[in-house]
Amino acid sequence: MSHQQQQIERFCRHLGYEFSDQKLIQRALTHRSASNRHNERLEFLGDAVLGMVIAKALFEQFPKVNEGQLTRMRSSLVKGKTLAVIAKEIDLGDYIRLGEGELKSGGFRRASILADGFEAVIGAVYLDSGFETTSQLILKLYGERLTQLNPDEVTKDAKTRLQELLQSRGYPLPEYDLLTVTGEAHKQTFEVVCVISEQKIKTQGTGSSRRNAEQLAAEKAFTELQKALAS
Amino acid sequence: MSHQQQQIERFCRHLGYEFSDQKLIQRALTHRSASNRHNERLEFLGDAVLGMVIAKALFEQFPKVNEGQLTRMRSSLVKGKTLAVIAKEIDLGDYIRLGEGELKSGGFRRASILADGFEAVIGAVYLDSGFETTSQLILKLYGERLTQLNPDEVTKDAKTRLQELLQSRGYPLPEYDLLTVTGEAHKQTFEVVCVISEQKIKTQGTGSSRRNAEQLAAEKAFTELQKALAS
Repeated sequence: MSHQQQQIERFCRHLGYEFSDQKLIQRALTHRSASNRHNERLEFLGDAVLGMVIAKALFEQFPKVNEGQLTRMRSSLVKGKTLAVIAKEIDLGDYIRLGEGELKSGGFRRASILADGFEAVIGAVYLDSGFETTSQLILKLYGERLTQLNPDEVTKDAKTRLQELLQSRGYPLPEYDLLTVTGEAHKQTFEVVCVISEQKIKTQGTGSSRRNAEQLAAEKAFTELQKALAS
Repeated sequence: MSHQQQQIERFCRHLGYEFSDQKLIQRALTHRSASNRHNERLEFLGDAVLGMVIAKALFEQFPKVNEGQLTRMRSSLVKGKTLAVIAKEIDLGDYIRLGEGELKSGGFRRASILADGFEAVIGAVYLDSGFETTSQLILKLYGERLTQLNPDEVTKDAKTRLQELLQSRGYPLPEYDLLTVTGEAHKQTFEVVCVISEQKIKTQGTGSSRRNAEQLAAEKAFTELQKALAS
């Protein structure tokens, strides 16, 4: 058995999956700096498989959680940082083939190379075994990150998220204005408007406190803004 | 048979799929303005299923196309505009349940409501039938949009994409500088650097023309910038 084969066998033990087609895992572990037969197409496929497996798991695990929160939980689970951590847990950095330049600059420790490599491995497992097996493997690798997930911890409040999104695009901050206060002193209802003039977005929120009303208006504005930026 | 049931049967004929669980399709066709039992969670699930089905189809259909191009093709196929067109083809706007406000403002014609509704329908089909059947239905609904897809048409040149991404974030434009020209007059090699000072990104490209070298440098800078913005 060649050194490379031994290496791959060892990695597969860390991963907890045995490949029928060895070429797939060889390719998944080859960074573009090492060879033309590199892992980037597998990374593209793996990214999609991972996204769907995590979406399905969250959908089933949290039957009462709304779409916005599900989306944020999914983002936190499939972002580069999280994938790099899982990649380190299966020692992916020790087995990925890099070109000389990347080797010298310590590329095997770089989070983006680890995260991309992990997605490529997922793509390879999917081609080798199909959706069900890949799904089980992903859920096993995620472990408590998924089973112990608390929807509330992932969620920043809406005003903060709106502000961060606007700032990331270089837009001015939103304005909040109190429209009406109704009801008796101890049971008032506040109606608030959130305006993002730059994007012609105007949303309203109603709540038992000014803060709650603002959060609701911000939540709606955030959704509108995301759609405007995506279109 | 109630009016609502008749409506749903009619829609399912347009869609080309018969549901075992009628509640799923009822829910998929209910906008949040009409009821608390609305389609947003199904939309979340459908979005992930759609993304994976399209990614897999592109991966298989274009064995020679690189990751960047696959990603751009996928984006063009799953963006709101495309989904709204497919939704119109199956007359989804005639069957979606909206609240009074949205009805009055002609919400059934709004692209985002149609696109979201289409994703919700995909989510419902997936829960009703699993991955294989949903995949076949999606590929049928996409039809020529997928089978006649030309990778080159989807791809804007790298310099344009880089410029657009920087502008969308309010950053200054990149600078291109010629580093070296080597070789004889009719067979020169150009080496160019692309600098995005704001993000401390510096990439190089080499080509048989200055233009080609710049495109390559821009392609690399685009990838780096995406990673920087995502992290």
